[in-house]
Amino acid sequence: MSILEEVLSSNDAYVDSFGDKGQLAMPPARGFAILTCMDARLDPAKYAGLSEGDAHVIRNAGGRASDDAIRSLVISYKLLGTKEWFVIHHRDCGMELFTDDVIRGLLASSLETAEIGADGFTDVGAGPGSREGDYIDWLTIADQAASVTEDVRRIKAHPLVPSGIPVYGYIYDVATGRLIEVPEATEVGRAG
Amino acid sequence: MSILEEVLSSNDAYVDSFGDKGQLAMPPARGFAILTCMDARLDPAKYAGLSEGDAHVIRNAGGRASDDAIRSLVISYKLLGTKEWFVIHHRDCGMELFTDDVIRGLLASSLETAEIGADGFTDVGAGPGSREGDYIDWLTIADQAASVTEDVRRIKAHPLVPSGIPVYGYIYDVATGRLIEVPEATEVGRAG
Repeated sequence: MSILEEVLSSNDAYVDSFGDKGQLAMPPARGFAILTCMDARLDPAKYAGLSEGDAHVIRNAGGRASDDAIRSLVISYKLLGTKEWFVIHHRDCGMELFTDDVIRGLLASSLETAEIGADGFTDVGAGPGSREGDYIDWLTIADQAASVTEDVRRIKAHPLVPSGIPVYGYIYDVATGRLIEVPEATEVGRAG
Repeated sequence: MSILEEVLSSNDAYVDSFGDKGQLAMPPARGFAILTCMDARLDPAKYAGLSEGDAHVIRNAGGRASDDAIRSLVISYKLLGTKEWFVIHHRDCGMELFTDDVIRGLLASSLETAEIGADGFTDVGAGPGSREGDYIDWLTIADQAASVTEDVRRIKAHPLVPSGIPVYGYIYDVATGRLIEVPEATEVGRAG
């Protein structure tokens, strides 16, 4: 089966077991939101115990507090009533394995997928590439605890975020499934 | 229990049943990525049949192809090898219930949560608000099929996206759990 066929087949099974979930309301029942990484190993519903209807989940490369994540958080709060937020980065994140210069160079070399090895990424493609990557801030991560704290600080300092919203900073350990607090981040995130 | 205590308690249970998932590799095992909405009623792992390690999941308000979503998709492809992407918006999306003017007005009025009623959102907070919302494109949705098609088109036209990547356009029906194809979007997304 193709990927598309597999996804649609799984969806058929989900529809068959859907039950009364069609009755769920739009605002998150448990009134919170999670910002986390797109990493395939992370399932926020599973690691945080979410059922359908419980909480907003925002995901991007790194789980970073990008402008777009803040757009989503402000909508989550202002229109749909979430009152507590989590920022959850994770160990062994791909965003730690490169820098803006590295991905810009790889993209300029070719648009084919690079290979990961012990020494980092190697471009194996044949051109043409694009220099458009030079104009993107890739939001890479040098230190996880620092990135969580910086992102919580950015969210708390945003003029559209009320000071009273607690923001909890955590790191997800992909080796164990455990959420580990980043105390500096939570301290910033509870202030207000 | 507080929300934080509930999440950490659920996480404890997840850790206890984690099994051998610590062995999963960073690149998505099934080589694809899903861009979808943060809506609490959507669980992409469940509606698309994903296990931990299978696929990247990118989520924001609306599931829109924002600059940040494209940053994430390019990383997903170039560094972590996904080769097929889905754009999945959904019925009864909050992004259909307001316009840039509406949310800008609500945020200028106060930073407290607005109430949803049959006539839309009403601000019930006491000021001060902020005009900072005037500088954000909220990426609202007027028509779901059109928004999926526009987003697929934007992704396919991006200079860092190789033309050969298929992008499938779907709408998730929150009443039934069903993924419904947007044929115009898939046509655009398969071209190249």
